[in-house]
Amino acid sequence: MEKNTLLLIKIGGGADINWDYIADDLASMNEPYILVHGANSTMTQISQSLQKEERTIQSPSGFSSRYSDKETIDVFLQAYCGLANKRLVELLQRKGIKAVGLSGIDGGIWTGKKKAKIIGTPSDEQKVRVIRDNYVGNVTQINTELLTLLLSHDYVPVLTAPAISLGGEIINVDNDRAVATMVKELNIKEVVMLFGAPGLLRDHLDETSVIPHLTVNELEQSMEFAKGRMKKKVLGTQEAFKNGLETMYWGDGRIKNPISSTRAGIGTQITQS
Amino acid sequence: MEKNTLLLIKIGGGADINWDYIADDLASMNEPYILVHGANSTMTQISQSLQKEERTIQSPSGFSSRYSDKETIDVFLQAYCGLANKRLVELLQRKGIKAVGLSGIDGGIWTGKKKAKIIGTPSDEQKVRVIRDNYVGNVTQINTELLTLLLSHDYVPVLTAPAISLGGEIINVDNDRAVATMVKELNIKEVVMLFGAPGLLRDHLDETSVIPHLTVNELEQSMEFAKGRMKKKVLGTQEAFKNGLETMYWGDGRIKNPISSTRAGIGTQITQS
Repeated sequence: MEKNTLLLIKIGGGADINWDYIADDLASMNEPYILVHGANSTMTQISQSLQKEERTIQSPSGFSSRYSDKETIDVFLQAYCGLANKRLVELLQRKGIKAVGLSGIDGGIWTGKKKAKIIGTPSDEQKVRVIRDNYVGNVTQINTELLTLLLSHDYVPVLTAPAISLGGEIINVDNDRAVATMVKELNIKEVVMLFGAPGLLRDHLDETSVIPHLTVNELEQSMEFAKGRMKKKVLGTQEAFKNGLETMYWGDGRIKNPISSTRAGIGTQITQS
Repeated sequence: MEKNTLLLIKIGGGADINWDYIADDLASMNEPYILVHGANSTMTQISQSLQKEERTIQSPSGFSSRYSDKETIDVFLQAYCGLANKRLVELLQRKGIKAVGLSGIDGGIWTGKKKAKIIGTPSDEQKVRVIRDNYVGNVTQINTELLTLLLSHDYVPVLTAPAISLGGEIINVDNDRAVATMVKELNIKEVVMLFGAPGLLRDHLDETSVIPHLTVNELEQSMEFAKGRMKKKVLGTQEAFKNGLETMYWGDGRIKNPISSTRAGIGTQITQS
């Protein structure tokens, strides 16, 4: 009945995330953890400065993903691995945390299979078509050796997309599904997800409609409430539970003590049963 | 007479560097090494795309450095830690090298003192003045624990500026002087420097005027030949020898087998005596 106490904390990349509150909360923690972060708002800001349009691809089944051609991956590297990751590491170090910023590429921490093609409708086009110049895939292997090495010496891995393909090409991946693979490979039992909402909302326009507790089975039904990117988060969560997760917390990344609050019951708690 | 066999390879960030040739040469190596790289041409390219002017500061003693205000550091992170570092790690992994991309910020690998002010003339101004909004410093401490940890598990640290200050602020630093501090802290005896020239040139306009061998004392005199950024390279080299270095190779980063060639005598070899 040994419990792996490694915690995984995933922070969304929305503009309203309060990184300072998060860093303060992390600085008071006394357990090992891995941080995974997004950088959507940084990506949008840099894309606008570069006057590059951010395109998405709508799949026939209703999922939306970033159109990640080579040029977009270049900007992605600037935003996620460059600006967002290093400014976060700076902040964490200022709070006394031994943060080490890494992407899924480094040491092949996140390795997956590149999709040769995907079928969907680009946001600047009208028709469904086969898309080949899209560097995307799913994370299937984790370099647990490298992560464990860092953790065992009290370093905090601060991880971000993209990942690397088996053939050695940078690929964009869904962070939430990468988290699910980490749950499996690192035997993680507890995940905290922070984003710009107080939890899973019954009505996505009403912040007071937080669902405080759900089982994974009930989550399936909640798909009808989930809008946009939230759909992927639900999918990633389901996968994480299939991979052995015991508890997932969805908490508010805008409030003070966001991690300890959500673990204390503020937000949405998802359990196996 | 035990010799530390750890090799340090520093690669300049010029547009004419052939990264593919470098990666091939590295893939054939059977000894531990740390890679330090620049990204000047990537920085210029991104700055131009963002329509941001790259400013320099000329010191009264004739040294030129990048004007590194907060906005410039943001672009620097995108270029050095984002685009250049991760595309290089991708290339190295494709060649089978277990590359881990890191900046001097991560884990405080490069820690230094931030200069409160510097005196100089910004490139878009006429007069010498006191400059305070400049995030720069010199690397004085190396996190040898983290680097040794990675090396002992056969990972190749792929390191780039910037660094972090003792107060936890990102600071721009001179790569060549950071290399000199690494020489001291990691007891490195051999450094290879690759850039867009065949070695130290007696006449910087004549690529056939390579000086094949120099002692550190003779290097001092070569200051009269050294132009622009080369002046800093000479200064960094002198410091590295003060810190215990035995041999430094200055080689051509544009040719096939650039590392093995320069260690075999093509380029400039600098020794203590």
